[in-house]
Amino acid sequence: MAFSSQKPRLSVNEYVAGIQSGNRFILSKAITLIESELSADASIADQVLQQVMPVTPNAFGAKDKAIRLGITGVPGVGKSTFIEALGNYLVTSGISVAVLTVDPSSQKTRGSIMGDKTRMTMLSQHPMAFIRPSATGTYLGGVARKTREAMLLCEAAGYQVMIVETVGVGQSETEVRDMVDFFLLLMLAGAGDELQGIKKGIIEMADALVINKADGDNTKNAKEARQNYTQALHLLPPAESGVVPAVFLSSATENQGIEDIWQFIKAFEQTTTRNHYLQKLREQQNLQWFHKTLHSLMVKALSQQENMQSMLPAIEQQVRQGILPATQAARQLLEAVFSKT
Amino acid sequence: MAFSSQKPRLSVNEYVAGIQSGNRFILSKAITLIESELSADASIADQVLQQVMPVTPNAFGAKDKAIRLGITGVPGVGKSTFIEALGNYLVTSGISVAVLTVDPSSQKTRGSIMGDKTRMTMLSQHPMAFIRPSATGTYLGGVARKTREAMLLCEAAGYQVMIVETVGVGQSETEVRDMVDFFLLLMLAGAGDELQGIKKGIIEMADALVINKADGDNTKNAKEARQNYTQALHLLPPAESGVVPAVFLSSATENQGIEDIWQFIKAFEQTTTRNHYLQKLREQQNLQWFHKTLHSLMVKALSQQENMQSMLPAIEQQVRQGILPATQAARQLLEAVFSKT
Repeated sequence: MAFSSQKPRLSVNEYVAGIQSGNRFILSKAITLIESELSADASIADQVLQQVMPVTPNAFGAKDKAIRLGITGVPGVGKSTFIEALGNYLVTSGISVAVLTVDPSSQKTRGSIMGDKTRMTMLSQHPMAFIRPSATGTYLGGVARKTREAMLLCEAAGYQVMIVETVGVGQSETEVRDMVDFFLLLMLAGAGDELQGIKKGIIEMADALVINKADGDNTKNAKEARQNYTQALHLLPPAESGVVPAVFLSSATENQGIEDIWQFIKAFEQTTTRNHYLQKLREQQNLQWFHKTLHSLMVKALSQQENMQSMLPAIEQQVRQGILPATQAARQLLEAVFSKT
Repeated sequence: MAFSSQKPRLSVNEYVAGIQSGNRFILSKAITLIESELSADASIADQVLQQVMPVTPNAFGAKDKAIRLGITGVPGVGKSTFIEALGNYLVTSGISVAVLTVDPSSQKTRGSIMGDKTRMTMLSQHPMAFIRPSATGTYLGGVARKTREAMLLCEAAGYQVMIVETVGVGQSETEVRDMVDFFLLLMLAGAGDELQGIKKGIIEMADALVINKADGDNTKNAKEARQNYTQALHLLPPAESGVVPAVFLSSATENQGIEDIWQFIKAFEQTTTRNHYLQKLREQQNLQWFHKTLHSLMVKALSQQENMQSMLPAIEQQVRQGILPATQAARQLLEAVFSKT
């Protein structure tokens, strides 16, 4: 291949060919391209993405389509250990795995970036696994967009299971839920703290719950928690997927529960492929992502209009002082911009 | 005054004069006008708002400026009873109160609308109190906007304390935090459930915590919780307001704690007026509200463009099927719209 490490940028064709041949080094470089804030990079990234898109699956009907898993849980629940255990189980079974992280806090707390690199030591060395530390971004939506596109590239490179991990900061669970097929919530059992720190609504978003660290002294509590959650889930409105969410016990350190969870995910895939939920879900996710992006680009484009730039400061001044109501100020400004365009 | 109940709409001047004279009936009608989705109403509402704006305070330096309080807490924490107790304390002390609710769920669950009308029975009958059930709206941001504008009208009518209650659905706490000076979080003490149901980050947003229902058998737990939270708050980064958040015990049924809380709010007002935090906060809130409104109007305006409407379906189809990457689709569409405008 006609490139060396001295050459900073590859051609679109080099990226596409590299990704499609499963070259991890080029896949990495392509994700870096997507994460770049430079507009020259954005244009190449667009072309690379579009060329690999027909390869990436829209719904996993065919056997080479990837399954997209989202995994969340409060800090300390054991997400990385669980993902390492699940990942090792998969690669040992001959199924390739890509692990991506959505962590909007990573640009602030350098600790979590370091963490990404040093976590999952076994999995990260396996040739069938690809682990990518979280993208940095200036806002959460930006991080999620980059993770989404990185996922498409990993799928084009042939990885069969996508694991997207969220650290649960801000809206990150919702952002991840909106890019995966199956959403898994890791929890801890303990004295009355089953709900502690878990945001309202997350349980309703989950396709399965896993009570983690169900080992040693904790086993009894974990079993009780499992029973309670199973009952609670039956009280919720039926899932759109047509599959009743299940509750699993897991001990990542003792390598227990992983196979059951994977079997459940496989069964979920089959059922939701048959009932067309999966295809509908991915279509909805694509559309939603498109509209979000369109809206933020609309705002950006109009904000850069020359007359907007010239009129804004005076109006902002009146709004800040409370002389002009915000709603009216916005209406006036926009009317003025459109009448002069 | 030249109107009767047969006449459906007042003139701008009638609204303004009625509000400024503290006429509760006209204030109510003006809020209904703001909540209306009709564009004819929107135009009158804009004019009414702008005319009363110079009267509404931008920061309460002068003694007739209103204090804006936000109150949140999980369902069952006793918000209405607490607000009724605080409201009664204030009106008895000669301070007028307006109570508004942000409840994005009220359009779905008619129960909570009914609830608003039957709650706070004592306060609602007091001539110095004005209670307005939650606005209905098609999206949370819309509900918040209407509540914000209703608050401005209440201030123009001379109410001295605004109490904005949020039911804690979706992003409603953040929306309310962004329209008030002082944000109060109601909590319950109990066996290990101090954090249950409370979203992450809410405690950091609060200017004071109140452990409610601190009576009877619960007193000991409440005192312990107070100590724990006081310690926890000291571990958080210092508040921008310059005032260290305090933790209070309250029993609304036994009418305890209300006076201490009010004294703390008054002291907060004095300190933050002196250190200019309050003025800065309100300026920021005005600007933020303006930009949010401007962005949603921008999206609306561009979405209604003729060529956008004509091009959208085909692009949506490709995005839905996963042929065209969402980001690229959005970029292409917007470029096409702008080049043809």
